[in-house]
Amino acid sequence: MKLLRVGPPGAERPALLDEDGTLRDLSALVPDVDGALLGDEAALAHVRAAVGARVLPVLDRRGLRIGPPVARIGKIVCVGVNYRDLVAEAGVATPAEPVLFMKAPDTVVGPDDTVLVPRGAEKTDWEVELAVVIGRTARYLRTDEEALAAVAGYAVTNDVSERAFQNERGGQWDKGKNCETFNPFGPWLVTADEIPDPHALGMRLWVNGELMQDSSTAEQIFPVAHVVRYVSGFMTLYPGDVINTGTPAGVALSRPEPKPYLRAGDVMELEIDGLGRQRQQLKDA
Amino acid sequence: MKLLRVGPPGAERPALLDEDGTLRDLSALVPDVDGALLGDEAALAHVRAAVGARVLPVLDRRGLRIGPPVARIGKIVCVGVNYRDLVAEAGVATPAEPVLFMKAPDTVVGPDDTVLVPRGAEKTDWEVELAVVIGRTARYLRTDEEALAAVAGYAVTNDVSERAFQNERGGQWDKGKNCETFNPFGPWLVTADEIPDPHALGMRLWVNGELMQDSSTAEQIFPVAHVVRYVSGFMTLYPGDVINTGTPAGVALSRPEPKPYLRAGDVMELEIDGLGRQRQQLKDA
Repeated sequence: MKLLRVGPPGAERPALLDEDGTLRDLSALVPDVDGALLGDEAALAHVRAAVGARVLPVLDRRGLRIGPPVARIGKIVCVGVNYRDLVAEAGVATPAEPVLFMKAPDTVVGPDDTVLVPRGAEKTDWEVELAVVIGRTARYLRTDEEALAAVAGYAVTNDVSERAFQNERGGQWDKGKNCETFNPFGPWLVTADEIPDPHALGMRLWVNGELMQDSSTAEQIFPVAHVVRYVSGFMTLYPGDVINTGTPAGVALSRPEPKPYLRAGDVMELEIDGLGRQRQQLKDA
Repeated sequence: MKLLRVGPPGAERPALLDEDGTLRDLSALVPDVDGALLGDEAALAHVRAAVGARVLPVLDRRGLRIGPPVARIGKIVCVGVNYRDLVAEAGVATPAEPVLFMKAPDTVVGPDDTVLVPRGAEKTDWEVELAVVIGRTARYLRTDEEALAAVAGYAVTNDVSERAFQNERGGQWDKGKNCETFNPFGPWLVTADEIPDPHALGMRLWVNGELMQDSSTAEQIFPVAHVVRYVSGFMTLYPGDVINTGTPAGVALSRPEPKPYLRAGDVMELEIDGLGRQRQQLKDA
Protein backbone atom coordinates (compact mmCIF):
# COMPACT_ATOMS: atom_id res chain seq x y z
CA MET A 1 0.00 0.00 0.00
CA LYS A 2 0.99 3.61 -0.58
CA LEU A 3 -0.08 5.53 2.52
CA LEU A 4 0.00 9.31 2.58
CA ARG A 5 -1.40 12.40 4.28
CA VAL A 6 -3.05 15.23 2.36
CA GLY A 7 -4.26 18.70 3.27
CA PRO A 8 -2.94 21.89 4.86
CA PRO A 9 0.13 21.74 7.17
CA GLY A 10 -0.93 20.45 10.57
CA ALA A 11 -4.39 19.46 9.31
CA GLU A 12 -3.56 16.59 6.97
CA ARG A 13 -5.95 13.65 6.59
CA PRO A 14 -4.89 10.04 6.00
CA ALA A 15 -5.15 8.80 2.43
CA LEU A 16 -4.08 5.98 0.16
CA LEU A 17 -2.94 5.85 -3.44
CA ASP A 18 -4.41 2.73 -4.97
CA GLU A 19 -3.01 0.55 -7.77
CA ASP A 20 -4.82 2.61 -10.40
CA GLY A 21 -3.23 5.80 -9.10
CA THR A 22 -6.53 6.92 -7.57
CA LEU A 23 -6.28 8.86 -4.32
CA ARG A 24 -8.63 7.52 -1.66
CA ASP A 25 -9.68 8.97 1.67
CA LEU A 26 -8.81 6.90 4.75
CA SER A 27 -10.13 9.32 7.34
CA ALA A 28 -13.32 7.32 8.04
CA LEU A 29 -11.19 4.24 8.64
CA VAL A 30 -8.17 5.44 10.68
CA PRO A 31 -7.46 8.66 12.58
CA ASP A 32 -4.08 9.24 10.92
CA VAL A 33 -0.98 7.57 9.49
CA ASP A 34 1.27 7.44 12.52
CA GLY A 35 3.11 5.06 14.82
CA ALA A 36 -0.19 3.90 16.34
CA LEU A 37 -1.44 2.74 12.93
CA LEU A 38 1.89 1.37 11.71
CA GLY A 39 2.29 -0.66 14.89
CA ASP A 40 -1.24 -2.09 14.69
CA GLU A 41 -1.39 -5.08 12.35
CA ALA A 42 -5.15 -5.45 12.74
CA ALA A 43 -5.77 -1.83 11.75
CA LEU A 44 -3.47 -2.19 8.73
CA ALA A 45 -5.27 -5.39 7.71
CA HIS A 46 -8.57 -3.50 7.99
CA VAL A 47 -7.24 -0.81 5.62
CA ARG A 48 -5.95 -3.48 3.25
CA ALA A 49 -9.35 -5.18 3.17
CA ALA A 50 -11.11 -1.89 2.44
CA VAL A 51 -8.69 -1.25 -0.44
CA GLY A 52 -9.44 -4.71 -1.86
CA ALA A 53 -13.17 -4.11 -1.59
CA ARG A 54 -12.77 -0.77 -3.45
CA VAL A 55 -15.11 0.95 -1.03
CA LEU A 56 -12.90 3.89 -0.06
CA PRO A 57 -14.10 7.35 -1.15
CA VAL A 58 -12.11 8.99 -3.96
CA LEU A 59 -10.29 12.28 -3.31
CA ASP A 60 -9.67 14.87 -5.99
CA ARG A 61 -5.87 15.28 -6.22
CA ARG A 62 -5.98 18.64 -7.96
CA GLY A 63 -4.71 21.45 -5.78
CA LEU A 64 -4.32 19.13 -2.82
CA ARG A 65 -1.09 19.52 -0.85
CA ILE A 66 0.70 16.34 0.15
CA GLY A 67 2.09 16.39 3.69
CA PRO A 68 4.69 14.13 5.27
CA PRO A 69 3.36 10.53 5.16
CA VAL A 70 3.83 9.91 8.90
CA ALA A 71 2.43 12.10 11.70
CA ARG A 72 3.94 12.44 15.17
CA ILE A 73 7.34 11.01 14.26
CA GLY A 74 9.12 10.14 17.50
CA LYS A 75 12.71 10.52 16.35
CA ILE A 76 14.74 10.56 13.16
CA VAL A 77 18.03 8.68 13.30
CA CYS A 78 20.33 9.45 10.38
CA VAL A 79 23.18 7.38 9.00
CA GLY A 80 26.18 9.29 7.64
CA VAL A 81 28.73 8.14 5.03
CA ASN A 82 26.74 5.04 4.04
CA TYR A 83 27.23 4.85 0.25
CA ARG A 84 30.24 3.33 -1.52
CA ASP A 85 30.05 5.87 -4.36
CA LEU A 86 30.01 8.75 -1.84
CA VAL A 87 33.07 7.38 -0.05
CA ALA A 88 34.90 6.99 -3.37
CA GLU A 89 33.97 10.47 -4.57
CA ALA A 90 34.75 12.24 -1.29
CA GLY A 91 37.96 10.28 -0.71
CA VAL A 92 37.04 9.48 2.88
CA ALA A 93 37.54 6.22 4.74
CA THR A 94 34.79 3.59 4.73
CA PRO A 95 33.32 3.61 8.27
CA ALA A 96 33.94 0.49 10.33
CA GLU A 97 30.41 0.74 11.70
CA PRO A 98 27.46 3.04 10.96
CA VAL A 99 27.88 6.74 11.78
CA LEU A 100 24.71 8.02 13.47
CA PHE A 101 23.32 11.48 14.09
CA MET A 102 19.88 12.91 14.84
CA LYS A 103 17.35 15.11 13.12
CA ALA A 104 14.44 16.60 15.09
CA PRO A 105 10.96 15.60 13.84
CA ASP A 106 10.00 19.30 13.66
CA THR A 107 12.29 19.66 10.62
CA VAL A 108 9.93 17.47 8.58
CA VAL A 109 7.81 19.06 5.82
CA GLY A 110 5.84 17.69 2.91
CA PRO A 111 7.58 16.48 -0.26
CA ASP A 112 6.77 19.61 -2.25
CA ASP A 113 6.90 22.23 0.50
CA THR A 114 9.28 25.19 0.49
CA VAL A 115 12.76 24.64 1.94
CA LEU A 116 14.26 27.62 3.75
CA VAL A 117 17.92 28.60 3.38
CA PRO A 118 18.87 29.52 6.95
CA ARG A 119 20.00 33.06 7.74
CA GLY A 120 23.78 33.21 7.58
CA ALA A 121 23.95 30.02 5.53
CA GLU A 122 26.45 29.72 2.70
CA LYS A 123 26.68 25.97 2.15
CA THR A 124 23.14 24.55 2.00
CA ASP A 125 23.23 21.11 0.37
CA TRP A 126 20.90 18.34 -0.80
CA GLU A 127 20.84 14.62 0.08
CA VAL A 128 18.40 12.18 -1.53
CA GLU A 129 17.91 9.26 0.86
CA LEU A 130 15.90 6.12 1.46
CA ALA A 131 13.87 6.58 4.65
CA VAL A 132 12.97 3.50 6.68
CA VAL A 133 9.82 3.85 8.80
CA ILE A 134 9.61 1.67 11.90
CA GLY A 135 6.45 -0.35 12.59
CA ARG A 136 7.46 -2.46 15.57
CA THR A 137 9.44 -1.66 18.73
CA ALA A 138 13.05 -2.63 18.05
CA ARG A 139 15.38 -3.17 21.01
CA TYR A 140 18.62 -5.16 20.92
CA LEU A 141 17.62 -7.06 17.79
CA ARG A 142 19.82 -10.03 17.00
CA THR A 143 19.05 -10.99 13.40
CA ASP A 144 18.44 -9.35 10.04
CA GLU A 145 15.05 -11.08 9.95
CA GLU A 146 13.99 -9.37 13.19
CA ALA A 147 15.26 -6.07 11.79
CA LEU A 148 13.29 -6.33 8.55
CA ALA A 149 10.18 -7.39 10.49
CA ALA A 150 10.43 -4.07 12.37
CA VAL A 151 10.23 -2.06 9.13
CA ALA A 152 6.73 -0.75 8.30
CA GLY A 153 7.78 0.72 4.98
CA TYR A 154 9.96 3.02 2.92
CA ALA A 155 9.80 6.57 1.62
CA VAL A 156 11.86 9.25 -0.10
CA THR A 157 13.54 11.77 2.17
CA ASN A 158 15.76 14.79 1.57
CA ASP A 159 18.31 15.18 4.38
CA VAL A 160 18.97 18.87 3.69
CA SER A 161 22.22 19.99 5.33
CA GLU A 162 24.08 23.24 5.93
CA ARG A 163 27.73 22.22 5.59
CA ALA A 164 29.24 25.25 7.30
CA PHE A 165 26.92 24.79 10.29
CA GLN A 166 27.62 21.03 10.20
CA ASN A 167 31.40 21.07 9.89
CA GLU A 168 32.82 24.50 10.65
CA ARG A 169 30.95 25.74 13.73
CA GLY A 170 32.39 23.49 16.43
CA GLY A 171 31.27 20.12 17.61
CA GLN A 172 28.64 17.87 16.21
CA TRP A 173 26.93 17.57 12.79
CA ASP A 174 23.47 18.10 14.30
CA LYS A 175 23.96 21.89 14.17
CA GLY A 176 23.75 21.78 10.36
CA LYS A 177 21.03 19.14 10.13
CA ASN A 178 18.22 20.59 12.23
CA CYS A 179 17.31 23.86 10.56
CA GLU A 180 13.57 24.35 9.99
CA THR A 181 12.14 22.67 6.84
CA PHE A 182 15.36 20.61 6.43
CA ASN A 183 13.60 17.26 6.01
CA PRO A 184 11.13 17.02 3.09
CA PHE A 185 9.54 13.59 3.44
CA GLY A 186 7.24 11.62 1.16
CA PRO A 187 5.09 11.65 -0.94
CA TRP A 188 4.12 8.15 0.25
CA LEU A 189 5.02 5.52 2.71
CA VAL A 190 5.19 2.31 0.66
CA THR A 191 4.59 -0.67 2.93
CA ALA A 192 7.50 -3.10 3.16
CA ASP A 193 5.59 -5.98 1.48
CA GLU A 194 5.70 -3.99 -1.78
CA ILE A 195 9.49 -3.46 -1.67
CA PRO A 196 10.91 -7.00 -1.81
CA ASP A 197 14.50 -5.70 -2.18
CA PRO A 198 15.21 -2.25 -0.70
CA HIS A 199 18.72 -2.45 -2.22
CA ALA A 200 17.71 -2.41 -5.86
CA LEU A 201 16.17 1.05 -6.04
CA GLY A 202 17.50 3.71 -8.39
CA MET A 203 17.64 7.17 -6.78
CA ARG A 204 18.14 10.54 -8.43
CA LEU A 205 18.23 14.22 -7.51
CA TRP A 206 18.20 17.25 -9.80
CA VAL A 207 18.90 20.91 -9.01
CA ASN A 208 17.30 23.34 -11.44
CA GLY A 209 16.83 20.43 -13.85
CA GLU A 210 20.46 19.29 -13.75
CA LEU A 211 21.00 15.70 -12.58
CA MET A 212 23.23 15.88 -9.49
CA GLN A 213 22.77 12.49 -7.81
CA ASP A 214 22.21 9.34 -9.89
CA SER A 215 22.80 6.20 -7.88
CA SER A 216 21.10 3.21 -6.32
CA THR A 217 20.43 1.86 -2.85
CA ALA A 218 22.66 -1.04 -4.01
CA GLU A 219 25.55 1.30 -3.10
CA GLN A 220 24.72 1.21 0.63
CA ILE A 221 27.67 0.14 2.78
CA PHE A 222 25.44 -0.95 5.67
CA PRO A 223 22.15 -2.29 4.30
CA VAL A 224 18.76 -1.60 5.86
CA ALA A 225 18.63 -4.75 7.99
CA HIS A 226 22.10 -4.09 9.36
CA VAL A 227 21.31 -0.45 10.13
CA VAL A 228 18.05 -1.25 11.96
CA ARG A 229 19.72 -3.99 13.97
CA TYR A 230 22.73 -1.78 14.73
CA VAL A 231 20.67 1.23 15.84
CA SER A 232 18.55 -1.02 18.09
CA GLY A 233 21.70 -1.80 20.09
CA PHE A 234 22.14 1.86 21.03
CA MET A 235 18.61 3.23 21.17
CA THR A 236 15.15 1.72 21.21
CA LEU A 237 13.20 2.27 18.01
CA TYR A 238 9.43 2.74 18.26
CA PRO A 239 6.63 2.59 15.66
CA GLY A 240 6.63 5.91 13.82
CA ASP A 241 10.38 6.47 14.19
CA VAL A 242 12.31 7.06 10.98
CA ILE A 243 15.84 6.19 9.86
CA ASN A 244 17.37 8.25 7.05
CA THR A 245 19.81 5.72 5.64
CA GLY A 246 22.37 7.99 4.00
CA THR A 247 22.97 9.68 0.67
CA PRO A 248 24.96 8.59 -2.40
CA ALA A 249 27.57 10.52 -4.40
CA GLY A 250 26.82 13.85 -5.99
CA VAL A 251 26.20 16.28 -3.13
CA ALA A 252 27.52 19.84 -3.47
CA LEU A 253 30.07 19.26 -0.68
CA SER A 254 32.07 16.73 -2.69
CA ARG A 255 32.13 18.73 -5.95
CA PRO A 256 35.01 20.94 -7.15
CA GLU A 257 35.14 24.61 -6.20
CA PRO A 258 33.13 26.68 -6.57
CA LYS A 259 30.76 24.17 -5.02
CA PRO A 260 27.18 24.63 -6.25
CA TYR A 261 25.48 25.16 -2.89
CA LEU A 262 21.78 26.00 -2.89
CA ARG A 263 20.36 29.50 -2.98
CA ALA A 264 16.89 31.01 -2.79
CA GLY A 265 15.04 30.33 -6.03
CA ASP A 266 16.74 26.99 -6.72
CA VAL A 267 14.56 23.93 -7.23
CA MET A 268 15.39 20.43 -5.95
CA GLU A 269 13.64 17.42 -7.47
CA LEU A 270 14.31 13.92 -6.22
CA GLU A 271 12.95 10.42 -6.64
CA ILE A 272 13.52 6.81 -5.71
CA ASP A 273 12.18 3.99 -7.90
CA GLY A 274 8.75 2.96 -6.67
CA LEU A 275 8.69 5.52 -3.85
CA GLY A 276 7.63 8.63 -5.76
CA ARG A 277 9.06 12.06 -6.39
CA GLN A 278 9.59 15.31 -4.46
CA ARG A 279 10.03 18.91 -5.64
CA GLN A 280 11.09 21.80 -3.39
CA GLN A 281 11.81 25.42 -4.16
CA LEU A 282 14.22 27.23 -1.86
CA LYS A 283 13.50 30.57 -0.22
CA ASP A 284 15.44 32.66 2.26
CA ALA A 285 14.45 32.15 5.88
CA MET B 1 5.00 27.86 40.28
CA LYS B 2 6.31 24.33 40.51
CA LEU B 3 4.54 22.30 37.83
CA LEU B 4 4.82 18.55 37.74
CA ARG B 5 3.18 15.36 36.47
CA VAL B 6 2.33 12.45 38.74
CA GLY B 7 1.12 8.91 38.18
CA PRO B 8 2.12 5.79 36.25
CA PRO B 9 4.38 6.13 33.17
CA GLY B 10 2.34 7.31 30.21
CA ALA B 11 -0.68 8.10 32.41
CA GLU B 12 0.62 11.03 34.45
CA ARG B 13 -1.74 13.80 35.53
CA PRO B 14 -0.79 17.49 35.82
CA ALA B 15 -0.09 18.74 39.33
CA LEU B 16 1.40 21.63 41.23
CA LEU B 17 3.51 21.87 44.35
CA ASP B 18 2.35 24.92 46.25
CA GLU B 19 4.34 27.20 48.57
CA ASP B 20 3.47 25.06 51.59
CA GLY B 21 4.83 21.96 49.85
CA THR B 22 1.32 20.62 49.31
CA LEU B 23 0.75 18.67 46.12
CA ARG B 24 -2.35 19.84 44.26
CA ASP B 25 -4.20 18.30 41.33
CA LEU B 26 -4.36 20.40 38.16
CA SER B 27 -6.23 17.89 36.03
CA ALA B 28 -9.58 19.67 36.30
CA LEU B 29 -7.91 22.87 35.13
CA VAL B 30 -5.53 21.86 32.32
CA PRO B 31 -5.19 18.66 30.24
CA ASP B 32 -1.46 18.30 30.86
CA VAL B 33 1.81 20.16 31.37
CA ASP B 34 3.11 20.38 27.82
CA GLY B 35 4.07 22.86 25.11
CA ALA B 36 0.42 23.81 24.61
CA LEU B 37 0.12 24.91 28.25
CA LEU B 38 3.57 26.50 28.49
CA GLY B 39 2.92 28.53 25.34
CA ASP B 40 -0.49 29.73 26.54
CA GLU B 41 -0.15 32.72 28.85
CA ALA B 42 -3.89 32.87 29.56
CA ALA B 43 -3.99 29.22 30.65
CA LEU B 44 -0.94 29.75 32.88
CA ALA B 45 -2.57 32.85 34.41
CA HIS B 46 -5.69 30.77 35.07
CA VAL B 47 -3.59 28.18 36.94
CA ARG B 48 -1.85 30.94 38.87
CA ALA B 49 -5.18 32.43 39.92
CA ALA B 50 -6.45 29.05 41.12
CA VAL B 51 -3.29 28.60 43.17
CA GLY B 52 -3.80 32.00 44.75
CA ALA B 53 -7.41 31.18 45.58
CA ARG B 54 -6.30 27.89 47.22
CA VAL B 55 -9.12 25.99 45.53
CA LEU B 56 -7.11 23.18 43.96
CA PRO B 57 -7.72 19.67 45.31
CA VAL B 58 -4.93 18.18 47.42
CA LEU B 59 -3.17 15.00 46.25
CA ASP B 60 -1.66 12.49 48.64
CA ARG B 61 2.07 12.30 47.77
CA ARG B 62 2.63 8.96 49.45
CA GLY B 63 3.42 6.22 46.96
CA LEU B 64 2.83 8.55 44.03
CA ARG B 65 5.38 8.32 41.22
CA ILE B 66 6.62 11.60 39.79
CA GLY B 67 6.94 11.59 35.99
CA PRO B 68 8.84 14.00 33.75
CA PRO B 69 7.40 17.52 34.27
CA VAL B 70 6.73 18.13 30.56
CA ALA B 71 4.72 15.83 28.26
CA ARG B 72 5.21 15.54 24.49
CA ILE B 73 8.64 17.19 24.42
CA GLY B 74 9.36 18.15 20.81
CA LYS B 75 13.13 17.99 20.89
CA ILE B 76 15.99 18.10 23.35
CA VAL B 77 18.98 20.18 22.32
CA CYS B 78 22.07 19.58 24.45
CA VAL B 79 25.06 21.83 24.98
CA GLY B 80 28.43 20.13 25.40
CA VAL B 81 31.54 21.44 27.18
CA ASN B 82 29.73 24.43 28.72
CA TYR B 83 31.28 24.67 32.22
CA ARG B 84 34.55 26.38 33.08
CA ASP B 85 35.35 23.88 35.83
CA LEU B 86 34.77 20.97 33.41
CA VAL B 87 37.10 22.51 30.82
CA ALA B 88 39.78 23.03 33.48
CA GLU B 89 39.42 19.52 34.86
CA ALA B 90 39.34 17.77 31.49
CA GLY B 91 42.13 19.91 30.04
CA VAL B 92 40.17 20.62 26.86
CA ALA B 93 39.92 23.90 24.96
CA THR B 94 37.14 26.36 25.77
CA PRO B 95 34.74 26.22 22.81
CA ALA B 96 34.56 29.36 20.68
CA GLU B 97 30.80 28.87 20.39
CA PRO B 98 28.33 26.40 21.92
CA VAL B 99 28.73 22.73 20.98
CA LEU B 100 25.29 21.24 20.25
CA PHE B 101 23.99 17.71 20.02
CA MET B 102 20.58 16.06 20.27
CA LYS B 103 18.78 13.72 22.61
CA ALA B 104 15.53 12.03 21.55
CA PRO B 105 12.49 12.83 23.74
CA ASP B 106 11.85 9.09 24.16
CA THR B 107 14.93 8.90 26.41
CA VAL B 108 13.10 10.94 29.08
CA VAL B 109 11.97 9.26 32.29
CA GLY B 110 10.82 10.54 35.67
CA PRO B 111 13.32 11.88 38.22
CA ASP B 112 13.29 8.72 40.34
CA ASP B 113 12.80 6.09 37.64
CA THR B 114 15.26 3.29 36.94
CA VAL B 115 18.14 4.04 34.57
CA LEU B 116 19.25 1.14 32.37
CA VAL B 117 22.91 0.39 31.70
CA PRO B 118 22.85 -0.50 27.98
CA ARG B 119 23.93 -3.98 26.89
CA GLY B 120 27.60 -3.90 25.95
CA ALA B 121 28.16 -0.67 27.88
CA GLU B 122 31.33 -0.20 29.89
CA LYS B 123 31.47 3.55 30.39
CA THR B 124 28.06 4.76 31.55
CA ASP B 125 28.40 8.20 33.12
CA TRP B 126 26.34 10.85 34.93
CA GLU B 127 25.81 14.54 34.14
CA VAL B 128 23.78 16.84 36.40
CA GLU B 129 22.45 19.70 34.26
CA LEU B 130 20.17 22.71 34.30
CA ALA B 131 17.34 22.10 31.80
CA VAL B 132 15.71 25.09 30.14
CA VAL B 133 12.13 24.53 29.01
CA ILE B 134 10.91 26.66 26.11
CA GLY B 135 7.57 28.50 26.37
CA ARG B 136 7.55 30.64 23.24
CA THR B 137 8.60 29.93 19.64
CA ALA B 138 12.19 31.12 19.26
CA ARG B 139 13.54 31.75 15.77
CA TYR B 140 16.54 33.96 14.96
CA LEU B 141 16.36 35.81 18.27
CA ARG B 142 18.51 38.92 18.44
CA THR B 143 18.75 39.86 22.09
CA ASP B 144 19.22 38.23 25.47
CA GLU B 145 15.91 39.75 26.53
CA GLU B 146 14.07 37.95 23.72
CA ALA B 147 15.87 34.75 24.67
CA LEU B 148 14.90 34.91 28.34
CA ALA B 149 11.31 35.76 27.38
CA ALA B 150 11.20 32.45 25.47
CA VAL B 151 12.05 30.47 28.62
CA ALA B 152 9.03 28.95 30.40
CA GLY B 153 11.08 27.58 33.27
CA TYR B 154 13.87 25.44 34.60
CA ALA B 155 14.32 21.88 35.87
CA VAL B 156 16.93 19.36 36.92
CA THR B 157 18.05 16.93 34.23
CA ASN B 158 20.53 14.05 34.15
CA ASP B 159 22.19 13.79 30.73
CA VAL B 160 23.24 10.16 31.17
CA SER B 161 25.95 9.22 28.66
CA GLU B 162 27.75 6.08 27.54
CA ARG B 163 31.28 7.32 26.81
CA ALA B 164 32.43 4.36 24.72
CA PHE B 165 29.33 4.66 22.51
CA GLN B 166 29.79 8.46 22.44
CA ASN B 167 33.50 8.66 21.67
CA GLU B 168 34.85 5.30 20.50
CA ARG B 169 32.26 3.91 18.07
CA GLY B 170 32.73 6.22 15.09
CA GLY B 171 31.11 9.51 14.29
CA GLN B 172 28.88 11.62 16.42
CA TRP B 173 28.20 11.85 20.16
CA ASP B 174 24.48 11.09 19.70
CA LYS B 175 25.22 7.34 19.67
CA GLY B 176 26.09 7.47 23.38
CA LYS B 177 23.40 9.95 24.40
CA ASN B 178 20.19 8.32 23.18
CA CYS B 179 20.00 5.01 25.02
CA GLU B 180 16.61 4.31 26.62
CA THR B 181 16.04 5.93 30.07
CA PHE B 182 19.10 8.18 29.55
CA ASN B 183 17.34 11.41 30.48
CA PRO B 184 15.81 11.52 33.98
CA PHE B 185 13.97 14.85 34.13
CA GLY B 186 12.29 16.69 36.99
CA PRO B 187 10.85 16.55 39.61
CA TRP B 188 9.37 19.97 38.79
CA LEU B 189 9.36 22.63 36.18
CA VAL B 190 9.92 25.86 38.13
CA THR B 191 8.52 28.78 36.16
CA ALA B 192 11.09 31.39 35.13
CA ASP B 193 9.56 34.15 37.30
CA GLU B 194 10.71 32.22 40.39
CA ILE B 195 14.33 31.91 39.19
CA PRO B 196 15.53 35.53 38.96
CA ASP B 197 19.13 34.46 38.27
CA PRO B 198 19.62 31.04 36.63
CA HIS B 199 23.39 31.48 37.08
CA ALA B 200 23.46 31.42 40.86
CA LEU B 201 22.26 27.86 41.44
CA GLY B 202 24.37 25.30 43.29
CA MET B 203 24.25 21.85 41.69
CA ARG B 204 25.39 18.54 43.11
CA LEU B 205 25.44 14.86 42.16
CA TRP B 206 26.23 11.84 44.33
CA VAL B 207 26.92 8.24 43.35
CA ASN B 208 26.23 5.74 46.12
CA GLY B 209 26.30 8.63 48.57
CA GLU B 210 29.68 9.99 47.46
CA LEU B 211 29.63 13.60 46.21
CA MET B 212 30.89 13.52 42.61
CA GLN B 213 29.77 16.87 41.15
CA ASP B 214 29.63 20.00 43.32
CA SER B 215 29.43 23.15 41.28
CA SER B 216 27.18 26.02 40.28
CA THR B 217 25.47 27.29 37.17
CA ALA B 218 27.77 30.33 37.67
CA GLU B 219 30.41 28.17 35.94
CA GLN B 220 28.55 28.17 32.60
CA ILE B 221 30.69 29.39 29.70
CA PHE B 222 27.67 30.32 27.59
CA PRO B 223 24.83 31.46 29.86
CA VAL B 224 21.18 30.54 29.31
CA ALA B 225 20.25 33.66 27.34
CA HIS B 226 23.24 33.21 25.04
CA VAL B 227 22.47 29.52 24.50
CA VAL B 228 18.79 30.10 23.67
CA ARG B 229 19.65 32.92 21.28
CA TYR B 230 22.44 30.89 19.68
CA VAL B 231 20.34 27.74 19.20
CA SER B 232 17.53 29.84 17.66
CA GLY B 233 19.91 30.80 14.85
CA PHE B 234 20.29 27.17 13.79
CA MET B 235 16.98 25.57 14.64
CA THR B 236 13.57 26.87 15.60
CA LEU B 237 12.64 26.23 19.23
CA TYR B 238 8.99 25.53 20.06
CA PRO B 239 7.04 25.53 23.34
CA GLY B 240 7.76 22.23 25.07
CA ASP B 241 11.28 21.90 23.64
CA VAL B 242 14.08 21.47 26.18
CA ILE B 243 17.71 22.57 26.25
CA ASN B 244 20.10 20.63 28.49
CA THR B 245 22.69 23.30 29.16
CA GLY B 246 25.75 21.20 29.99
CA THR B 247 27.37 19.60 33.00
CA PRO B 248 30.08 20.83 35.39
CA ALA B 249 33.27 19.08 36.53
CA GLY B 250 33.21 15.72 38.25
CA VAL B 251 31.95 13.24 35.67
CA ALA B 252 33.52 9.76 35.61
CA LEU B 253 35.11 10.48 32.20
CA SER B 254 37.45 13.13 33.58
CA ARG B 255 38.57 11.18 36.67
CA PRO B 256 41.79 9.18 36.99
CA GLU B 257 41.88 5.50 36.01
CA PRO B 258 40.19 3.30 36.92
CA LYS B 259 37.33 5.65 36.14
CA PRO B 260 34.28 5.01 38.33
CA TYR B 261 31.73 4.33 35.58
CA LEU B 262 28.25 3.27 36.61
CA ARG B 263 27.13 -0.32 37.10
CA ALA B 264 23.84 -2.02 37.87
CA GLY B 265 22.96 -1.43 41.51
CA ASP B 266 24.57 2.01 41.72
CA VAL B 267 22.43 4.93 42.85
CA MET B 268 22.65 8.46 41.43
CA GLU B 269 21.24 11.38 43.41
CA LEU B 270 21.31 14.90 42.04
CA GLU B 271 19.91 18.32 42.85
CA ILE B 272 19.98 21.94 41.83
CA ASP B 273 19.14 24.70 44.32
CA GLY B 274 15.44 25.50 44.15
CA LEU B 275 14.72 22.92 41.46
CA GLY B 276 14.45 19.77 43.53
CA ARG B 277 16.20 16.46 43.69
CA GLN B 278 16.38 13.20 41.70
CA ARG B 279 17.34 9.65 42.65
CA GLN B 280 17.89 6.81 40.18
CA GLN B 281 19.03 3.26 40.69
CA LEU B 282 20.79 1.57 37.78
CA LYS B 283 19.84 -1.81 36.38
CA ASP B 284 21.11 -3.80 33.43
CA ALA B 285 19.09 -3.38 30.25
